[in-house]
Amino acid sequence: MLKLDFHPSGRHYLQIPGPSPVPDRILRAMSLPTIDHRGPEFGALGRELLSKIQKIFKTQSPVIIYPASGTGAWEAALANTMSPGDRVLMFETGHFATLWQKMARRLDLEPEFIGLPGYEGWRHGVQADMIEARLKEDSGHEIKAVCVVHNETSTGVTSDIAAVRRAIDAAGHPALLIVDTISGLASADFRHDEWGVDVTVSGSQKGLMLPPGISFNALSDKAIEVSKTAKLPKSFWAWDEILEANQNGYWPYTPSTNLLYGLNEALDMLLDEGLDNVLARHQRWAAGVRTAVEAWGLEVQCQDPAVYSPVLTGVVVPEEIDADEVRKIIYERFDLSLGTGLGKAKGKMFRIGHLGDCNDLTLIATLGGCEAGMKLAGISLKGSGVAAALDYFAANPLNRGA
Amino acid sequence: MLKLDFHPSGRHYLQIPGPSPVPDRILRAMSLPTIDHRGPEFGALGRELLSKIQKIFKTQSPVIIYPASGTGAWEAALANTMSPGDRVLMFETGHFATLWQKMARRLDLEPEFIGLPGYEGWRHGVQADMIEARLKEDSGHEIKAVCVVHNETSTGVTSDIAAVRRAIDAAGHPALLIVDTISGLASADFRHDEWGVDVTVSGSQKGLMLPPGISFNALSDKAIEVSKTAKLPKSFWAWDEILEANQNGYWPYTPSTNLLYGLNEALDMLLDEGLDNVLARHQRWAAGVRTAVEAWGLEVQCQDPAVYSPVLTGVVVPEEIDADEVRKIIYERFDLSLGTGLGKAKGKMFRIGHLGDCNDLTLIATLGGCEAGMKLAGISLKGSGVAAALDYFAANPLNRGA
Amino acid sequence: MLKLDFHPSGRHYLQIPGPSPVPDRILRAMSLPTIDHRGPEFGALGRELLSKIQKIFKTQSPVIIYPASGTGAWEAALANTMSPGDRVLMFETGHFATLWQKMARRLDLEPEFIGLPGYEGWRHGVQADMIEARLKEDSGHEIKAVCVVHNETSTGVTSDIAAVRRAIDAAGHPALLIVDTISGLASADFRHDEWGVDVTVSGSQKGLMLPPGISFNALSDKAIEVSKTAKLPKSFWAWDEILEANQNGYWPYTPSTNLLYGLNEALDMLLDEGLDNVLARHQRWAAGVRTAVEAWGLEVQCQDPAVYSPVLTGVVVPEEIDADEVRKIIYERFDLSLGTGLGKAKGKMFRIGHLGDCNDLTLIATLGGCEAGMKLAGISLKGSGVAAALDYFAANPLNRGA
Amino acid sequence: MLKLDFHPSGRHYLQIPGPSPVPDRILRAMSLPTIDHRGPEFGALGRELLSKIQKIFKTQSPVIIYPASGTGAWEAALANTMSPGDRVLMFETGHFATLWQKMARRLDLEPEFIGLPGYEGWRHGVQADMIEARLKEDSGHEIKAVCVVHNETSTGVTSDIAAVRRAIDAAGHPALLIVDTISGLASADFRHDEWGVDVTVSGSQKGLMLPPGISFNALSDKAIEVSKTAKLPKSFWAWDEILEANQNGYWPYTPSTNLLYGLNEALDMLLDEGLDNVLARHQRWAAGVRTAVEAWGLEVQCQDPAVYSPVLTGVVVPEEIDADEVRKIIYERFDLSLGTGLGKAKGKMFRIGHLGDCNDLTLIATLGGCEAGMKLAGISLKGSGVAAALDYFAANPLNRGA
Repeated sequence: MLKLDFHPSGRHYLQIPGPSPVPDRILRAMSLPTIDHRGPEFGALGRELLSKIQKIFKTQSPVIIYPASGTGAWEAALANTMSPGDRVLMFETGHFATLWQKMARRLDLEPEFIGLPGYEGWRHGVQADMIEARLKEDSGHEIKAVCVVHNETSTGVTSDIAAVRRAIDAAGHPALLIVDTISGLASADFRHDEWGVDVTVSGSQKGLMLPPGISFNALSDKAIEVSKTAKLPKSFWAWDEILEANQNGYWPYTPSTNLLYGLNEALDMLLDEGLDNVLARHQRWAAGVRTAVEAWGLEVQCQDPAVYSPVLTGVVVPEEIDADEVRKIIYERFDLSLGTGLGKAKGKMFRIGHLGDCNDLTLIATLGGCEAGMKLAGISLKGSGVAAALDYFAANPLNRGA
Repeated sequence: MLKLDFHPSGRHYLQIPGPSPVPDRILRAMSLPTIDHRGPEFGALGRELLSKIQKIFKTQSPVIIYPASGTGAWEAALANTMSPGDRVLMFETGHFATLWQKMARRLDLEPEFIGLPGYEGWRHGVQADMIEARLKEDSGHEIKAVCVVHNETSTGVTSDIAAVRRAIDAAGHPALLIVDTISGLASADFRHDEWGVDVTVSGSQKGLMLPPGISFNALSDKAIEVSKTAKLPKSFWAWDEILEANQNGYWPYTPSTNLLYGLNEALDMLLDEGLDNVLARHQRWAAGVRTAVEAWGLEVQCQDPAVYSPVLTGVVVPEEIDADEVRKIIYERFDLSLGTGLGKAKGKMFRIGHLGDCNDLTLIATLGGCEAGMKLAGISLKGSGVAAALDYFAANPLNRGA
Repeated sequence: MLKLDFHPSGRHYLQIPGPSPVPDRILRAMSLPTIDHRGPEFGALGRELLSKIQKIFKTQSPVIIYPASGTGAWEAALANTMSPGDRVLMFETGHFATLWQKMARRLDLEPEFIGLPGYEGWRHGVQADMIEARLKEDSGHEIKAVCVVHNETSTGVTSDIAAVRRAIDAAGHPALLIVDTISGLASADFRHDEWGVDVTVSGSQKGLMLPPGISFNALSDKAIEVSKTAKLPKSFWAWDEILEANQNGYWPYTPSTNLLYGLNEALDMLLDEGLDNVLARHQRWAAGVRTAVEAWGLEVQCQDPAVYSPVLTGVVVPEEIDADEVRKIIYERFDLSLGTGLGKAKGKMFRIGHLGDCNDLTLIATLGGCEAGMKLAGISLKGSGVAAALDYFAANPLNRGA
Repeated sequence: MLKLDFHPSGRHYLQIPGPSPVPDRILRAMSLPTIDHRGPEFGALGRELLSKIQKIFKTQSPVIIYPASGTGAWEAALANTMSPGDRVLMFETGHFATLWQKMARRLDLEPEFIGLPGYEGWRHGVQADMIEARLKEDSGHEIKAVCVVHNETSTGVTSDIAAVRRAIDAAGHPALLIVDTISGLASADFRHDEWGVDVTVSGSQKGLMLPPGISFNALSDKAIEVSKTAKLPKSFWAWDEILEANQNGYWPYTPSTNLLYGLNEALDMLLDEGLDNVLARHQRWAAGVRTAVEAWGLEVQCQDPAVYSPVLTGVVVPEEIDADEVRKIIYERFDLSLGTGLGKAKGKMFRIGHLGDCNDLTLIATLGGCEAGMKLAGISLKGSGVAAALDYFAANPLNRGA
């Protein structure tokens, strides 16, 4: 019989950029007895959740909650708004943008994939001017949607979505703006309504600090309107029946009840702390981690300080080193999981997640494991990143507002 | 702030036909810390799960586990094997068969929906001879699949799937056999390989005793072959990438890690007890509950003893009574949830689930709540069902084999 | 390796008169991480607990919480107030009164043990007139304390403590009144201040619905005064240092932190429901259970209706039957634990606990198990107790006040 | 209503020398439903526990488990073996030795308290030669017991118990050897039988990684013999009835069932890892922490390297600094709890616990918090202790044997 308590003495440090460490409060909430999803209590829970989740997306429009993991919410965004053969403009920010583009192709769409070239291209955010230029060329409005990733989990770049909105507007183009903020929501600033996003895609296992298994589509009136005539076949993902059932707090089919308990707890935690405080907390952690990278004499994957991610930091290792070998040493010697380099970044870097159930000392431990592991792997470091981060955290207390 | 501990003193009796009461062991397993779904431990867990789940479906073929609730697995079965406009033959056993047929229509298929007429039609199982007759007419083999529900959750009828297989064979028809046993698996006898099922659809929140949120497709070689050329767009549900990643115990996208912990525990519980013992346990409970219904002088919804469900029992109330009013009284006075009458059965009956984390006394409590509630609702009962069921359970100890 | 999940399918019915079934809310609270018992958070917790627990004892005086199970609180009450060789008057209500008397002897006291004779004596409560008579004889005031059990867990008799107070007063005797309400607190009406009790002894694992492990002494000014000169050696149990440390919410030595988390949750549950509602709930359950016993044609252990216990009911079996054999059958066939007959009641009766995390249907299940088990054991019953109790519960809805 | 989830984002670092951080596995085991402590399952659990706990004490003799926290086990050791007025020789290793001596006085014993003078005296272990000299003087054998603390939690000194045994033997003195290893057991090497200890006192909340609430007396034949005639009054603590009931795995009164579940899990964890591996793990952590203290240019409280504690390390701060101010800053800024200086060490030092559910990175985080906090408090450090400890841990992988 497999033992699920995998780790030796002490707590595993899960510092990948999601799934993030789940707070005990949430695990405890998830262990409440499953209730009848057609009973009166469920309706009360559903209405409460659907109201609170809007605050996290900063929207007045409906948010769909799927009993499916994040990749499903990508599919849902496309399945509800597109018709077979539709052209979509997608920007290559990294590995996850690439996967989404692959999905669009499988769903019989015609993705057009633009971006900066090569591995270096993955070290910058969405270039809104390239989008604007392409849309201006599309005088026949064949492009039905612009799809961009807000926080690219594979690189640690958080693109400027407001700029993409301005680009679309400047081009006078009717394309929908569809944004993936699976790993950005509740850790990086995101404003569905203010930024004029039509469909926002997100998931549970990042800033919401839940285990994976549920995901989201935040909608706009325009997206809902478009969905009424879009022709891709859709049933499980279809917004219409869900929106109708949601009015009373229910779902047309069985929701993921116990993960919804966890979501309720997560929303209380985030809203009690104050979303702005949560965001400031992540920015501060990211700055501390970058201080460490600098002290080590290494490069951060993201080359544009304006779009550094508050959620994760990619650390580029020297060329002669295989980053995955470093990760392996760190995992085996220090019980610490880090994110691998994906796609074009494979072997070149590792990723430190600084989200979820963390605090300053969690990150000090993480940076400690990185520092010792890199040395063991033969990387010559300029100085101690841990010591530098400690000084940063000490000098910059978290400002909790009034 | 919403309090999730909804119930007053004592434990709520959740005796709906799923979600079933979740054993504490499973809730506890689900509360283990989320791990990296790309790490070495996850691969070990994945391989273990994929091997153990085959025993539950009684198959040597692969079983796909989706991070989505059961309705998604319905869609997956169709999306992987069908092309737009394909004709599928579906049999109306009740409400869930009807919903599945509706889904097929939304997915641009052409469902042909046959069955016995009216509400009375819902009191019997799949009529294999009707299927055979229809397939024989279809000399052009336009029908691509026969879709039937094994355990119809809305009625308490467990159809004879082997007979459907024989009907297809007798007609010499190449249609795939697709079976929904969402509420049958691990409570009612089911044999994917022996019965020649091509795709079996199931879910977590019934006989597997998990919360809802993950679901299954068990495959056949023929189904996998067909999936390679089927034309419905598919990405999230696509078997090909999952099958490839599953070889090492992984998934192409984020799985529902904590529900998989629960699944691992559930599989250990079921396999340790012995699947045949589990099935015998449910049959015995069902017989006890039917003894009570008979003692009350009421009718069981299912009119064919050969297909009584071991999972749930529909209780038909006298015509002048609204079954939902009875349920409401029972819920409010005895903290007991029962299943409502769905579709054509609305108001005519209520459903008692006898699955999941139950024992004899759980059912005695349940029957007690039903008995007292029906009396309070003004139903005149012939005798005490609780007393009759007690005598049945006392006279028929569970035989645990050698 | 021993598997702690002892029970087969479903939940064990733990219907002994304590430890009572623990609500999941409390188990969940107990699983919070242990904190520093010298840190600022602990002080806040301690102060909150010490304030809320007074409401349960209905006292304005201090309540001591020991990190030790209930028997320790018995010892504490004596060790703090008595000197070697002191005479104490104890009343034999049953097995637990007998054990307490034995303890007094071990602690070098001189217990005088009065009561009604034989097994029949155990079917009545404390006889206040006997106490009054004995105290009047004691003109030299050699008797230093009157020790009585409020709710005798071995018999199901809840004695009239106010009457004992009146007896002491009528005798004009200065003896302390020391009361054990280990199994009575929070299930049976108890009023420390109004009844003039000097030391009340209680425990966690009954009406407070916690696991065993912590226990209580509620004090009076007189008891505190006496403790200053009492000569029995005492250190762990000594009130003085605890009272001093408690002023800031701390303990002089390590408290049982996680059980205190559970206590905090229990107190919230009880006070949110309203203590009077809690007491009414138990009285109603007891009445329902006695209705069943009557329907079976059997006798309740307690022969005086004025002192029927709301916490448990002793069921006397026919003379030719060994009650422990009946319990064994019920345990093995129905996964239901009942209390054994203790001391003079051994083999003559079994005890049904109706306290803790219960509801009407829990008791219906329990009575069902008893009924079927007694029949299997060859007891001929007059009628169905389950059916009678169902009718009682249906006819007598719980009145929750305005 | 008090919120028990005290801490902000992330996990609190509880690095006091006990209660130690409790592994989730143990918290989860403790949340199993309470069972009947008179039922057959309990007996099986009890027998298992009583057998496994002997391996931790390295004894073939019985180990008593009390449902009371550790201070109770101190009292039990004295109450079972001493008579009023008995002289006991106690050695002042620090604050806890002092408290134990105070307890002896309250229990009407005559403690003779020897030791090295002043605060400096607390920086060394038990001086066996002083004990030997005193015993040799006691030709009348008035001293009935020698009481020493194995691991002095207030100072971080682990005394040489074998040397004390040799001292007693060299003096040819019949006094019992009573040892407190409350904070040493299962973290520091301890050998009840080999070292000829008569009564070993221990608790749950340190190396056993449980919450506080249960405690232990390991016995010797001689101690059991002495207990039969010892005259201190005893009932709750009395060994005789417990030893008798333990033969079948039961207790004479209600045990702390859910903490025993946790104990069972803890014993499995320790024995699965191998007790020697556990001890080596703690020694390595202690060495890493001392490396950090040295790098800071500070002194370890313990001045004799032969008796450095593997469980905790006392860090002496510069004279002009109040160590409690440092702790306060660290607590408030880094959510890290450290041990305070007790008694003669008040304000002079703080204590870092390195026991319980820890790993290398937990300690790196802890040292990081200490380092940053000391700087914020104005302490000028020679170098980075975190960096030094990282190097130590990297250079000294844990050797897991063959």
